[in-house]
Amino acid sequence: MSDADSSQDSPTSQVSAEGVGAVSERQHRATEWFAELRNRICAAFETLEDELSGETAERMGDIPPGRFQRTSWTRSDDSVDDPGGGTMAVMHGRVFEKVGVNISVVSGNFSPEFATQIPGASEAPRFWAAGISLVAHMWNPHAPAVHMNTRHIVTTQSWFGGGADLNPALVKDDDTRDFHKALEDCCNRHAVADHERYKAWADEYFFNKHRGEARGVGGIFYDYLNSGDWEADFAFTQDVGTTFLDIFPRLVRRRMHEPWSDDDRRQQLIHRGRYAEFNLVYDRGTQFGLKTGGNPEAILMSLPPMASWP
Amino acid sequence: MSDADSSQDSPTSQVSAEGVGAVSERQHRATEWFAELRNRICAAFETLEDELSGETAERMGDIPPGRFQRTSWTRSDDSVDDPGGGTMAVMHGRVFEKVGVNISVVSGNFSPEFATQIPGASEAPRFWAAGISLVAHMWNPHAPAVHMNTRHIVTTQSWFGGGADLNPALVKDDDTRDFHKALEDCCNRHAVADHERYKAWADEYFFNKHRGEARGVGGIFYDYLNSGDWEADFAFTQDVGTTFLDIFPRLVRRRMHEPWSDDDRRQQLIHRGRYAEFNLVYDRGTQFGLKTGGNPEAILMSLPPMASWP
Repeated sequence: MSDADSSQDSPTSQVSAEGVGAVSERQHRATEWFAELRNRICAAFETLEDELSGETAERMGDIPPGRFQRTSWTRSDDSVDDPGGGTMAVMHGRVFEKVGVNISVVSGNFSPEFATQIPGASEAPRFWAAGISLVAHMWNPHAPAVHMNTRHIVTTQSWFGGGADLNPALVKDDDTRDFHKALEDCCNRHAVADHERYKAWADEYFFNKHRGEARGVGGIFYDYLNSGDWEADFAFTQDVGTTFLDIFPRLVRRRMHEPWSDDDRRQQLIHRGRYAEFNLVYDRGTQFGLKTGGNPEAILMSLPPMASWP
Repeated sequence: MSDADSSQDSPTSQVSAEGVGAVSERQHRATEWFAELRNRICAAFETLEDELSGETAERMGDIPPGRFQRTSWTRSDDSVDDPGGGTMAVMHGRVFEKVGVNISVVSGNFSPEFATQIPGASEAPRFWAAGISLVAHMWNPHAPAVHMNTRHIVTTQSWFGGGADLNPALVKDDDTRDFHKALEDCCNRHAVADHERYKAWADEYFFNKHRGEARGVGGIFYDYLNSGDWEADFAFTQDVGTTFLDIFPRLVRRRMHEPWSDDDRRQQLIHRGRYAEFNLVYDRGTQFGLKTGGNPEAILMSLPPMASWP
């Protein structure tokens, strides 16, 4: 189903906008953007791997600076000519214990049951979806785990969605403040975005109901964004990506050289267990992927490299 | 919500059949049985902890032979006079990395949505349920993880359900064979049980659909057992428990002194990740517990002490 490919291909050689049937110029541009953002994020994260130095680098022993490995996969779906697929980019490094940056462009038909939950899919079950999804689990328990995802979905309607949230095992008030500020500034640059609403949406969404506790310190979440101005919606979605690309490496640089204890690590592994609970029980992207015949390896790449339920 | 209590209380001092309102003599007997079985299993597992010797015991360093710690919890539900609760018994040892043996007796009203999925609950949403649930995660990757659960549920109807399945990270054909044979012999001792059907049901149920792979090597699964002869159904359910109590310690004794490698451990942690996926995405007991206001700590005690998604 998939084959390893770690070459530095052009942004869209793995996931071609042309490859999923007749798509509009807009769909093509969104697809290109997700691939470009993936490339820029991977480059920035590899730079962080190179920057680790001193005692922390020594502590990581003979783990070399990480490099992303790309693996393409294709989706099986007899109901459409080209069901699409995606490319996973995964890095196991010495700053990032495990980070995945996936892009995908898929096309198909929703099941009748699932269609009722999706805007515009009751009229016709056909969908097209492209997006980028990122989850990073860090070695240093002082550095926060993070999630970022943006997507463009087309049924008989079309919209953007996405978000980003910070998941520190050991909460740092300045990291929380700076992360929220960056996303607030991003929203404020776009008339179509509403930070207050998107932040509240994240608090509501990234919540482990069965435990009555948040999965992290929040961020923003938005979905079904169609203001009537596609260019404006797309520009905001692009800015979410570039804002993430700016703020997250800054937080990592702030924390990646801090020493940590066995107890810090223990708390990190427990926190990751809660993260796994959320993704398997509630996550919309996981549900969407598993219900539309996605690649389980790609969908579940968000799960932590090591987690504990002591 | 809960308080630690590690005293060797009488079988039902923590979960009293009398404590959940007017229950029948049958409900009382089922409740007493689950507590008695819990006591016998805990004693047998603590004996295994004492038996570890030689190089394997040395390998475990200063971890002493494990002992179960009991914690009681009570359920919150304003819709009934006594919503009940349960007792968790958890042991972190040197043979068992983590094992939980929970008993519970709960009473309440199903939500309208959930009631449609439960026999007899559409007529009236009231339920009473008692049961025992066990999950063991072993240190030695050659020793299988295991799950066993039996329960008695009363709505306007009443039935027994349960099962047991073996989850080896490193599959051993003789363990698989002996486990299945013990359950087959158990079923064959009871006219109300159908081993072929229950084994197939386990294969169908303990399956990670999103990965297209079994979660382990199977066992038996049965539900809605009401043959019309309550005594016969109860006798079979008791025998499932005693059969487990006989076969599983034998498998552990066979494996607990085998040496293991780092790669064996690595495979074990990955296998546990799949186990966590099943429990969070599909497990009926988890869904039942989370949807009926159960104690998340008790419900999710099945999750592995350490797991990996590399």
